[in-house]
Amino acid sequence: MTQSHGSAAPFAQPALHARRLGLHTQHQPVVVMRTDCHVCRAEGLSARSQVLVSAGGRQVQATLFQVEGGTMLGIDDAGLSETAWTALGVQEGEEVRVTHAPAIESLANVRRRIYGNRLDARALTDIVRDVTAGRYTDVHLAAFLTASAALPLDEAETADLTAAMVGVGDRLGWDAPIVVDKHCIGGLPGNRTTPIVVAIVAANGLLMPKTSSRAITSPAGTADTMETLAPVDLDVVALKRVVEVEGGCIAWGGAVHLSPADDIFVRVERELDVDTEGQLIASVLSKKISAGSTHVVIDIPVGSTAKVRSEEAADGLAARMRAVGSRFGLDVTCIRTDGSQPVGRGIGPALEALDVLAVLQNAPGAPEDLRRRAAMLAGAALEIGSKAERGTGAALALETLRNGRAWAKFAAICEAQGGLRTPPKAAMVHALVSPRAGRVVHINNRKLARLAKLAGAPDTKAAGIHMEIRLGDEIDRGQPYLHVHAETSGELAYALDYAGSAGDIIEVES
Amino acid sequence: MTQSHGSAAPFAQPALHARRLGLHTQHQPVVVMRTDCHVCRAEGLSARSQVLVSAGGRQVQATLFQVEGGTMLGIDDAGLSETAWTALGVQEGEEVRVTHAPAIESLANVRRRIYGNRLDARALTDIVRDVTAGRYTDVHLAAFLTASAALPLDEAETADLTAAMVGVGDRLGWDAPIVVDKHCIGGLPGNRTTPIVVAIVAANGLLMPKTSSRAITSPAGTADTMETLAPVDLDVVALKRVVEVEGGCIAWGGAVHLSPADDIFVRVERELDVDTEGQLIASVLSKKISAGSTHVVIDIPVGSTAKVRSEEAADGLAARMRAVGSRFGLDVTCIRTDGSQPVGRGIGPALEALDVLAVLQNAPGAPEDLRRRAAMLAGAALEIGSKAERGTGAALALETLRNGRAWAKFAAICEAQGGLRTPPKAAMVHALVSPRAGRVVHINNRKLARLAKLAGAPDTKAAGIHMEIRLGDEIDRGQPYLHVHAETSGELAYALDYAGSAGDIIEVES
Repeated sequence: MTQSHGSAAPFAQPALHARRLGLHTQHQPVVVMRTDCHVCRAEGLSARSQVLVSAGGRQVQATLFQVEGGTMLGIDDAGLSETAWTALGVQEGEEVRVTHAPAIESLANVRRRIYGNRLDARALTDIVRDVTAGRYTDVHLAAFLTASAALPLDEAETADLTAAMVGVGDRLGWDAPIVVDKHCIGGLPGNRTTPIVVAIVAANGLLMPKTSSRAITSPAGTADTMETLAPVDLDVVALKRVVEVEGGCIAWGGAVHLSPADDIFVRVERELDVDTEGQLIASVLSKKISAGSTHVVIDIPVGSTAKVRSEEAADGLAARMRAVGSRFGLDVTCIRTDGSQPVGRGIGPALEALDVLAVLQNAPGAPEDLRRRAAMLAGAALEIGSKAERGTGAALALETLRNGRAWAKFAAICEAQGGLRTPPKAAMVHALVSPRAGRVVHINNRKLARLAKLAGAPDTKAAGIHMEIRLGDEIDRGQPYLHVHAETSGELAYALDYAGSAGDIIEVES
Repeated sequence: MTQSHGSAAPFAQPALHARRLGLHTQHQPVVVMRTDCHVCRAEGLSARSQVLVSAGGRQVQATLFQVEGGTMLGIDDAGLSETAWTALGVQEGEEVRVTHAPAIESLANVRRRIYGNRLDARALTDIVRDVTAGRYTDVHLAAFLTASAALPLDEAETADLTAAMVGVGDRLGWDAPIVVDKHCIGGLPGNRTTPIVVAIVAANGLLMPKTSSRAITSPAGTADTMETLAPVDLDVVALKRVVEVEGGCIAWGGAVHLSPADDIFVRVERELDVDTEGQLIASVLSKKISAGSTHVVIDIPVGSTAKVRSEEAADGLAARMRAVGSRFGLDVTCIRTDGSQPVGRGIGPALEALDVLAVLQNAPGAPEDLRRRAAMLAGAALEIGSKAERGTGAALALETLRNGRAWAKFAAICEAQGGLRTPPKAAMVHALVSPRAGRVVHINNRKLARLAKLAGAPDTKAAGIHMEIRLGDEIDRGQPYLHVHAETSGELAYALDYAGSAGDIIEVES
């Protein structure tokens, strides 16, 4: 037994050698070491410990897995997953050090929040900083998000969370008095107005630097859809160049790092399939503020199976959006829209992109509901930017579509983002047919979204649903009411299993 | 494009070959496959998907990681972590199939609970069944536990959760009219009365089949401590044999599978460092009911830094424990005890075991507080079992210690469990000294627990703290008030970093 007094002597840890495992873990940094590795023994590290991996001044917190013997790793190797490898920027064999991850002080705030205490700006800032640094495990992230859903964030917390999320990201600045943005609250499959709105607004000379998210709980986010038409992984420099030349862009927000904390929250919200109002507002507004917007038009679809289910709920959400926005000098205009059925025909990235193209290109049979809705939202932006008199914005927007200027602008934006693409088509298409004749009286948006996701959307771009009917249509027995598009027989079978057991996706009254 | 109608054609998936990776992931089943594997492509599986791995009628749900190229795996190999390997019981190279994990219907209940809706018995049974089957990810588990903390489980939910947890585990039956058990609510470092209580009670002819947990948020659970004295991983058959011969045992509950769902919840509660009343009651009572107990004595330490902080809180907890217990015919006796400071001298598995041995062996300097507290709890059990008149149980318990019958019984139990062991000693011992002279007026149990954990307890058995003072003691400047015991310099440094930054662990008034 050794006995020491005073402070602990500094201890020199022998170095380990970085090994690239080529391991894909979807954003989870993982390090694999031998169970008999001297560092594991000296540090008392066991499997699934959170560890800090350091190399040349860079650090990443990772989950430790251990391997017993074998040839995968030497005794002094630290095998790194792709996420960890990229974060450290090391070379094969380079020296790395692995220690216990430091205690996460901000978790005390999460625990306080679980027990019903409100958090102040300082506490939320500390949480968001640790989340962005990758220090929170899935358990910690899920606890924070669940606590903010069980006892909803109040207005002050929502504003503080918004500010904290803005604080950890990059921020864009524009040399224009008005920078207008748009956003849709979601929950309505196929509601893919953004590419059309950006094209119309930019064609009329307003600045609209639009960043969009990938899907959270839906079969496609705007970034997923847009990616089938042009590259969306623009960094800040590329995004600024596109907007300076074309007046608008449709980029993926995650690549711009406007709200890196949000990208982490979104992954867990997707796994939970939970999307709460406070997080929603902070997520939307933090990105608009970071993008340098002065005004934002927000589409709130209302319907019994949409995300917002009543006009009262929509008005409450709008009021809270406006209140939080005003704290940051962001002018928020909310527009309630019909959320009773999908917009357009396609649900899923590529299928929605085809609808967008049809509207922009004035193709015969282009979905009229998508055209009208995009024109209404673009019209509001044109009026805000004084490009149209009050009450005439939608008409100007429709004219911009009709005369081809919106399509020309969209094609130019796609070229500036890296080149216009043709959306992929699925290998397999399967019809779901009506068991009876009659009139379509109800469409369940939630079941449609689930079905499209099981078919592979949004990860499989071509997967999803093509709707063959709308509310009020007459349908015959045996007539297809939708087609499921899938890339693989496994995914198709998975979706059809669900369709067979989910009850009515549409309701038909004879 | 192929067009199919009617139900999807059954699709034959090519088989994969099981490879044992020797990968330790602490209970998380992991399967590693090549990104270019045909099954990943056919099924549309991506990294971190939840998948179902099947072989010869057995199944396990696992997290998928993918590896790009390399020599670790062939293109048709499925590399399995130790947990997955054991669950499937396969041989090297044996055929396995990997598909999407089925949708988890019970998550809808979790989401409803997050949004403040109470759950009924059916909903909780479905959740517990899916949890026990390993279908919940860390995100799902954390969400359920957080939701049950944010809006605490009510009595009906607590009883239903208890019943659900009993339902998925094994259950013991005993051929005796009274089977008495004991439990401590915890939160008080070093409060290791259980081995002493079992020895006293069994020595007096009562049946006490004690199963204990490993630490949740503390530096040692009874199972961790007992393991330094004898094997505790007894299966149901071994446990029954020990109890039938000796009248008592001190076994690890997890190995007996009395409440497998609890073992899963406990791991996540530990990571969250959150331990809520409803979960606590369900956890404790489900194991007592499954163990076939008719009566249980519950020790509730009360103190400003213990888990229960006021007499009112203790009484409320006791009332809810009794109410839920009575629904299952379990008689619950709660005893409030002093929770203002640690019990005994040691904190950490081996250091607490040394205190237990000292009391049982009547060693000079054996901690008197531990002796008295164990005798009080054992006395209550002896009175319940009619081995002592009301008010004379504690005296009988002390006499059973004094005359050596408790020690003889304890040694016999240890031998029956697989052999009495000597607790290990730590390689490094470091003194923390008082910065001033005076009287010890406060001891922070929470900081002590944190310090002991950072030193390596409970995973490192010899690690922890040896207390050198008690409340009211006089201490000199520079005199050690505790010693930190650690096995590695890394862990010692980690603990001392904390001690240097945590503020007062003890308060001394001059």
